[in-house]
Amino acid sequence: MKILVLNCGSSSVKYMLYRWGIRRPLASGVVERLGLEGTFIKHKVPGREIHQVTIPCSSHKEVAAFIIQTLTDPKTGVIKEPSEIEACGHRVVHGGEKFSSSVLITPDVLETFRELADLAPLHNPPNVMGIEAAQEHLPNIPHVAVMDTSFHQTMPPASYIYAVPFEWYLNYKVRRYGFHGTSHLYVSKRAAVMLGKKPDEVNLITCHIGNGVSFTAIKKGKSFDHSMGLTPLEGLVMGTRSGDLDPAIIDYIANKEKLTCHQVINFLNKKSGILGISGKYVDRRDMHQAMDEGDERAWLAFRIECQRAKKYLGAYMAALGHTDAIVFTAGVGERGWEMREEVCSDLEELGVKIDAERNRNAVTRNHESVISTDDSPIKIFVIPTDEELVFVEDVVAILKGHYGKEDFHYSFEDPAYVNELREEAYQREIEEQG
Amino acid sequence: MKILVLNCGSSSVKYMLYRWGIRRPLASGVVERLGLEGTFIKHKVPGREIHQVTIPCSSHKEVAAFIIQTLTDPKTGVIKEPSEIEACGHRVVHGGEKFSSSVLITPDVLETFRELADLAPLHNPPNVMGIEAAQEHLPNIPHVAVMDTSFHQTMPPASYIYAVPFEWYLNYKVRRYGFHGTSHLYVSKRAAVMLGKKPDEVNLITCHIGNGVSFTAIKKGKSFDHSMGLTPLEGLVMGTRSGDLDPAIIDYIANKEKLTCHQVINFLNKKSGILGISGKYVDRRDMHQAMDEGDERAWLAFRIECQRAKKYLGAYMAALGHTDAIVFTAGVGERGWEMREEVCSDLEELGVKIDAERNRNAVTRNHESVISTDDSPIKIFVIPTDEELVFVEDVVAILKGHYGKEDFHYSFEDPAYVNELREEAYQREIEEQG
Repeated sequence: MKILVLNCGSSSVKYMLYRWGIRRPLASGVVERLGLEGTFIKHKVPGREIHQVTIPCSSHKEVAAFIIQTLTDPKTGVIKEPSEIEACGHRVVHGGEKFSSSVLITPDVLETFRELADLAPLHNPPNVMGIEAAQEHLPNIPHVAVMDTSFHQTMPPASYIYAVPFEWYLNYKVRRYGFHGTSHLYVSKRAAVMLGKKPDEVNLITCHIGNGVSFTAIKKGKSFDHSMGLTPLEGLVMGTRSGDLDPAIIDYIANKEKLTCHQVINFLNKKSGILGISGKYVDRRDMHQAMDEGDERAWLAFRIECQRAKKYLGAYMAALGHTDAIVFTAGVGERGWEMREEVCSDLEELGVKIDAERNRNAVTRNHESVISTDDSPIKIFVIPTDEELVFVEDVVAILKGHYGKEDFHYSFEDPAYVNELREEAYQREIEEQG
Repeated sequence: MKILVLNCGSSSVKYMLYRWGIRRPLASGVVERLGLEGTFIKHKVPGREIHQVTIPCSSHKEVAAFIIQTLTDPKTGVIKEPSEIEACGHRVVHGGEKFSSSVLITPDVLETFRELADLAPLHNPPNVMGIEAAQEHLPNIPHVAVMDTSFHQTMPPASYIYAVPFEWYLNYKVRRYGFHGTSHLYVSKRAAVMLGKKPDEVNLITCHIGNGVSFTAIKKGKSFDHSMGLTPLEGLVMGTRSGDLDPAIIDYIANKEKLTCHQVINFLNKKSGILGISGKYVDRRDMHQAMDEGDERAWLAFRIECQRAKKYLGAYMAALGHTDAIVFTAGVGERGWEMREEVCSDLEELGVKIDAERNRNAVTRNHESVISTDDSPIKIFVIPTDEELVFVEDVVAILKGHYGKEDFHYSFEDPAYVNELREEAYQREIEEQG
């Protein structure tokens, strides 16, 4: 079975064509600068050179067509006919309260995603456009939605209800939803394997640290609390997002700068976080280079980012009572040893002992590592995430009819699971390092 | 020396006349409903019946005059002449970044408090009016300002800088300030005594839980991090304040309810917290009674309040690395055993072991208690706060010229210190209970 996975943002579309039988992607890529000057596609096929060209697309509909064309083109393609694609999985950011698991997209489901647009105005509309475009070009196959929020629907009310007028929840569904669900799901299952326990036996703190950052407190394998909220703005310090702050700042700045509330929130989403503090940097690698050059504001950004993260670790350790492991994942979580070292330092009395050398050596996106000391009561893992694999397996399981049933397990819950492509890449990395 | 202490809010004025020589208040009281119908004074003199009358005051100036008159009146008074008052201490909520300690009020200082009005629009203007009124009626004595924020000026930048555009700090002083400083100062010094250590040797988490709620992480005796921010809105769940939430909620609700940003923040300050979740209750005693009667929303409010508090404890344990003691203080902190029990439960792995019986017995505002088990690595104390005593001692020390100097110590830093009035009241409580 060949499955197309689509992740449609407002200005970019990521895609992957996965062949289930051999458990490998046939091709993957991204269309960037959608709706802007110079839209381009970057198309990767294992074993071939990357194919990158500027393309004349301005809508999600055109992009969907172009991706299918690229996948079937004799020169760039990996299949002959669009009809070889047997199912399509779509990432949908906000599933609201209605979906606690992935779902076959019916007209009703699609309508629900449209209705949720005001909860996720930046994300759900392009997600819906992507689904509509894909359904038009691939009309005769099942389309499945995999939501960022569904993993977190197990949170208890004490975690998801805000201390605001309760009518805001009843009338407008103001509550904590949580995001990055597929990533937290994937690494939590892998962490259970690394602990030698069943997924529903483990208490974890999973730390997804990329440009967006979210931590989940996982209790007996289920999302118990989470740092992001109604939207992905809440919680930790991110590349451009503020995370937590005194809400009164919004009104204060609106008055000072003569901005609307909406404009201030835009600043908090797009001009804050690492960028806001440092004044220059979004990418943590740039921040670290500036730190090496003595940039005080870059140092401050790093310290604030780490102190917030450390406090979230402590908060979730308290919320869980017992923690088996802390898991770092996503770009910065997988490679940012400096941040992991700082965040996990001086936590011995809470049961967290990081091994400095193991931590510094764990800087690949292709291999799982233990970076705690052997005698650390709470283990620390670095686990490269694999959200796409969750998309693919959800699609397959829904089509096969055993999704969500008792006997349903992800392939990566198996202690013997290996991502072969990554393992090969990791071996190459080791060889290159001599 | 007789010292008048004034705490002027927008609709109430609290006062105390303290005689330094005998270390006791001569009289204390409160004027309520200032500026509303039915303004009244409630005037207490130890050993006499409470004197309560409706009064014809509508301004802080009139109230100051009325308080002085009440203190000197042959029937209600405790002194003969206003000139017996030798100094006046004023609570000022927001001292901005300028003051890291209490200060003699000069015209320049007063001007600074006026300038800070937009950081604390609800608090600083009445504080300033109170100072002006008192200076007019007591023109020939020193007036001293004691600020809620000054204790927290020791926080490092990583604690007080928000992950927002750095220009907001440079241009508008957007940062974490922290509040309830005199309370956190008082209980931290007492906790050091209870630990048998010097004040600058202890790491503490001080939990001030009243209608307003704030926690401080104290490192080596100094405020290191704090839950309230630019304003007292941030942080824990409070009687009517939301504390932390996704900032995006503000814009979302402004749109849904057609409110201005300012109006939404008003809801977050006045209609949220315990009141918002429960829909009815502000006072925790009412909430607990409703819980006993099976009110689900009251239960939800309690659970949310406790989970947030538990997470702050964990966060600050992580930020401190090592914690000597957790201290509960203020109305709910001193008497709310249910909340303390819930908040401190299941934290054994983090080193916190509460003793259920000791905790249930610690429900007085007149006595300090240890409520952890003897083998708890982190001690848990209940310490009744005494902000007024800090006001008085700051005033005395400033007048005597040794405030802030190396040899300056508060009386309550002394292991032998006893608040005799409270101890007497505590003995009466014990006798009454049989």
